[in-house]
Amino acid sequence: MTSLRRYLPILDWGSRYDRNAFSNDMIAAVIVTIMLIPQSLAYALLAGLPPEAGIYASIAPIILYAIFGTSRALAVGPVAVVSLLTAAAIGEVAEAGTAGYVAAALTLAFLSGGFLLLLGVFRLGFLANFLSHPVIAGFITASGILIAASQLKHILGIQAGGHTLIELVVSLVGHLPDTNLITLIIGVAATGFLFWVRKGLKPLLRRLGLSPKAADIAQKAGPVAAVVVTTVAVWAFGLEARGVSIVGSVPQALPPLTLPSFSPNLIGALLMPAILISVIGFVESISVAQTLAAKKRQKIDPDQELIGLGAANLGAAFTGGYPVTGGFSRSVVNFDAGAETPAAGAYTAVGLAIAAVALTPLIYFLPKATLAATIIVAVLSLVDFSILKKTWAYSRADFIAVAATILLTLGFGVEAGVSAGVIISIMLHLNKTARPHVAEVGLVPGTHHFRNINRHRVETDPSMVTLRVDESLYFVNARFLEDLVLRRIANCPGIRNVVLQCSAVNEIDFSALESLEALNERLTELGIGLHLSEVKGPVTDRLRKTHFLDHLNGEIFLSQYHAWAALAQSPEARQTSCPRAAE
Amino acid sequence: MTSLRRYLPILDWGSRYDRNAFSNDMIAAVIVTIMLIPQSLAYALLAGLPPEAGIYASIAPIILYAIFGTSRALAVGPVAVVSLLTAAAIGEVAEAGTAGYVAAALTLAFLSGGFLLLLGVFRLGFLANFLSHPVIAGFITASGILIAASQLKHILGIQAGGHTLIELVVSLVGHLPDTNLITLIIGVAATGFLFWVRKGLKPLLRRLGLSPKAADIAQKAGPVAAVVVTTVAVWAFGLEARGVSIVGSVPQALPPLTLPSFSPNLIGALLMPAILISVIGFVESISVAQTLAAKKRQKIDPDQELIGLGAANLGAAFTGGYPVTGGFSRSVVNFDAGAETPAAGAYTAVGLAIAAVALTPLIYFLPKATLAATIIVAVLSLVDFSILKKTWAYSRADFIAVAATILLTLGFGVEAGVSAGVIISIMLHLNKTARPHVAEVGLVPGTHHFRNINRHRVETDPSMVTLRVDESLYFVNARFLEDLVLRRIANCPGIRNVVLQCSAVNEIDFSALESLEALNERLTELGIGLHLSEVKGPVTDRLRKTHFLDHLNGEIFLSQYHAWAALAQSPEARQTSCPRAAE
Repeated sequence: MTSLRRYLPILDWGSRYDRNAFSNDMIAAVIVTIMLIPQSLAYALLAGLPPEAGIYASIAPIILYAIFGTSRALAVGPVAVVSLLTAAAIGEVAEAGTAGYVAAALTLAFLSGGFLLLLGVFRLGFLANFLSHPVIAGFITASGILIAASQLKHILGIQAGGHTLIELVVSLVGHLPDTNLITLIIGVAATGFLFWVRKGLKPLLRRLGLSPKAADIAQKAGPVAAVVVTTVAVWAFGLEARGVSIVGSVPQALPPLTLPSFSPNLIGALLMPAILISVIGFVESISVAQTLAAKKRQKIDPDQELIGLGAANLGAAFTGGYPVTGGFSRSVVNFDAGAETPAAGAYTAVGLAIAAVALTPLIYFLPKATLAATIIVAVLSLVDFSILKKTWAYSRADFIAVAATILLTLGFGVEAGVSAGVIISIMLHLNKTARPHVAEVGLVPGTHHFRNINRHRVETDPSMVTLRVDESLYFVNARFLEDLVLRRIANCPGIRNVVLQCSAVNEIDFSALESLEALNERLTELGIGLHLSEVKGPVTDRLRKTHFLDHLNGEIFLSQYHAWAALAQSPEARQTSCPRAAE
Repeated sequence: MTSLRRYLPILDWGSRYDRNAFSNDMIAAVIVTIMLIPQSLAYALLAGLPPEAGIYASIAPIILYAIFGTSRALAVGPVAVVSLLTAAAIGEVAEAGTAGYVAAALTLAFLSGGFLLLLGVFRLGFLANFLSHPVIAGFITASGILIAASQLKHILGIQAGGHTLIELVVSLVGHLPDTNLITLIIGVAATGFLFWVRKGLKPLLRRLGLSPKAADIAQKAGPVAAVVVTTVAVWAFGLEARGVSIVGSVPQALPPLTLPSFSPNLIGALLMPAILISVIGFVESISVAQTLAAKKRQKIDPDQELIGLGAANLGAAFTGGYPVTGGFSRSVVNFDAGAETPAAGAYTAVGLAIAAVALTPLIYFLPKATLAATIIVAVLSLVDFSILKKTWAYSRADFIAVAATILLTLGFGVEAGVSAGVIISIMLHLNKTARPHVAEVGLVPGTHHFRNINRHRVETDPSMVTLRVDESLYFVNARFLEDLVLRRIANCPGIRNVVLQCSAVNEIDFSALESLEALNERLTELGIGLHLSEVKGPVTDRLRKTHFLDHLNGEIFLSQYHAWAALAQSPEARQTSCPRAAE
């Protein structure tokens, strides 16, 4: 029963569902539904799919997430970055606008869902940690710019394309002469209006005496107003005949049952993009879910979240959708509107299903420029270069990772950008551990503490060198310590003992063990004792399994002070006679 | 001048070269030359190249290494594993036996040399550390098996091929009916003889009264005896007409000047294999060089070694060779024979040049089965499964890396095997640091030391939790600590202070900083103090650049004992009231 509850969180909150929760969830659902109708259409456009795919991708996935997910407020559906990644991935295997393109989107959702489910079942959610926060921040910022640039063609009413910023700009400039003036007017007006709704509408309504809540709802409904006004304008003035691109006829139906293609070629081509989309979608979703859960002291289970998102994507694959994840803006709206349980999501799904059946004829005249304006305003709020400044001040390695991610995403597309970001982060981290900080330490007078001889006034003993190794010892840095110790003792004939203070050594792997054995052998030949101090429990346990401790020519001391007490000469005999190791 | 000496080590030893060194080098050169003639021919066969390529690859490269290398005893030329990698790489772009195949080998040597030179000039030799010792050991063992299996076709006198063990075995079994009986007799006899030379000849000669040195030289000359006897047998009995494959005519000339192809397609296809060959060749070479140098207390400069090996490979590319590196067996023979300086290598080159001009007609009737026997006996000595047992006993992660490398090399070929080994090693290491060991610590009574409460009898205070974090904090584990602390304090209302003992925290990256800020915020809300103790100098320096220390609600203590003295309740007030964190 407990394990059933773990995999089906709905059993937990469902059993305590009451009238109060129902009314709160219902209100939230109405607000989210109104917001989602234009958003879903717009993101489908961004993914290169027919508009209804966006609506379909918001129905079954929401319901499945409500059953399997652990967040109370997360709203699942198409989001900007995943839509862009979808366009990049299936653009490689099919032509936008063809049946093959729509089918590839289903396969991509299926692969993505399957991968998430696998990660969840095997409890591998921690893998998402390999995406560092600076890399994500850089990627989101660069993606926002790419997405905004990709939508300019709809604002200008021209044909253009490309997966990198340069391609997009070249293509836009090349087609600039074809600009449709009326489309441009609609697009710029809608964009300006939506920016104003975001910044200026709420204060205005508050000044006019509206309650904060009403002002908030009015702001959320802004995009709907833009949709209604521009649609009516196109219909009333016959602007379609003047070259304004419109959404056109959308099937008036519930989500269809669809079967993704399982062609091995298609699966081979989409597998890596699907993994990338899954990981990025999961990272985005989990961070939204955790932020919202923390505000209400609720708990998110990352592995169960993988199962919830996996189920949602499989749902999208079989109901005419495309890859989905938990979206930031829709989830925040849902949370702010008072959603108490995932049931709010289910009611939203019902609302969207009604829209799919009843409202689709009304959007026939909706100009694509309006949808593009919705996207541009939404994604530009994601663009935030402050991460560059913050990381520059704190750590060059983090700065390099974020700058590389931004530049490579803009210059070579989303997939190259985020992959390079991950690889660069890992390489920089390993590189830091490859040449670890090693401090030569001495006794702080009158205490039992040992500190860096270059930073503190400490006592030292010329017959004894103590090196504090500030890193785990493993294959990447195994030889480093060996070389360092041998360099330190070269030309210092007075040294009789070398102590390695291991308080910061959290691991000694097999390569490092071999290196320590070689060091012990070399020092034995030179008549110098090799000692270890402050070795951690888990490290000692492991060393005990080998012959290293039998061969070690020195001792293992519980504390560095014990080592000092046993090995240091009397104070009178001490004299500084040998150059110290550099920091 | 100093920098010229750094890049041209020959200026260093050359200026002190004397008559004694000359005679020692000369003796070593004669012995190595005798050994290298059959070996070079055999490795060319393994690489799928005409036999003379093996000789050519041992002439110019040796001389260039003598000028630029830092090892006194390293002998550079074709080696088994690099020959196999060469065959795998150029087998993808050209058919063995064609002119394109030979040209691709030149390009591969050129790319490999260029890459090594670049690494050396930018002093990036440490990159080779990413190949852990268990991965190398596993790779060499699996390669030895693959190489031996690939040579069985010559012993059987059949056509067969394949890059994986399964392909090789299937192909061999399929062609088994074509076995040439005379070839099989020659091959088995040669293999048996060479194994006996390796194990049994020296003790026999010693019992017959030969000096150890003479017995040693006789053993080294064993392969030459096999070559002479089988060649004469084929010639005398006309075995060529009976279907025994022979080496055939080899051009009687000095190494030709050749120009590698710079076709972008070829470079594109060979770049990754060239990088792999460079790195593996460098790792093999540097470990041989360091082992031999240590015996004579000489020093190897890894970055200059890259330059030496890079020059050697460029030399191979322009003189009809293929990728080379410092070989284990030939270097050991050179060292044992008394080589004092790299000049010994230059004399070997002269010896081989004479052989190329004068001796090539004599090997017309040399059976390929004899060369295959030479290879099989040489590589089987590399096969050593003990690394599996050793790593199993010490560390499961190292065991997994070595087992995966062996299985993947045998099952998917050399390139897949070694790449997977490197990736698996890195992933396992990161995975270990992703869920770091965190110990709850208490005061060892009567001391200033703090130890794990689950391993030692220590004093604790219910109002205070001290966690010693045994890992650097960075993006892969950033959230882990935050979650852990929040879990630890949940349901423990008595806790007023949390201390993070940072003695093992060598780095806090930007992601981890954000995580600590979030933790500080959460604890502040709960009215709990967050303190750090024993923060290392470099970590403190970095934290000072941020606002973290301003926002931190608690203090930073120089030592954990200072934290205890400031925060712990009086002994009377202490009582254990709360479950402790699990280990």
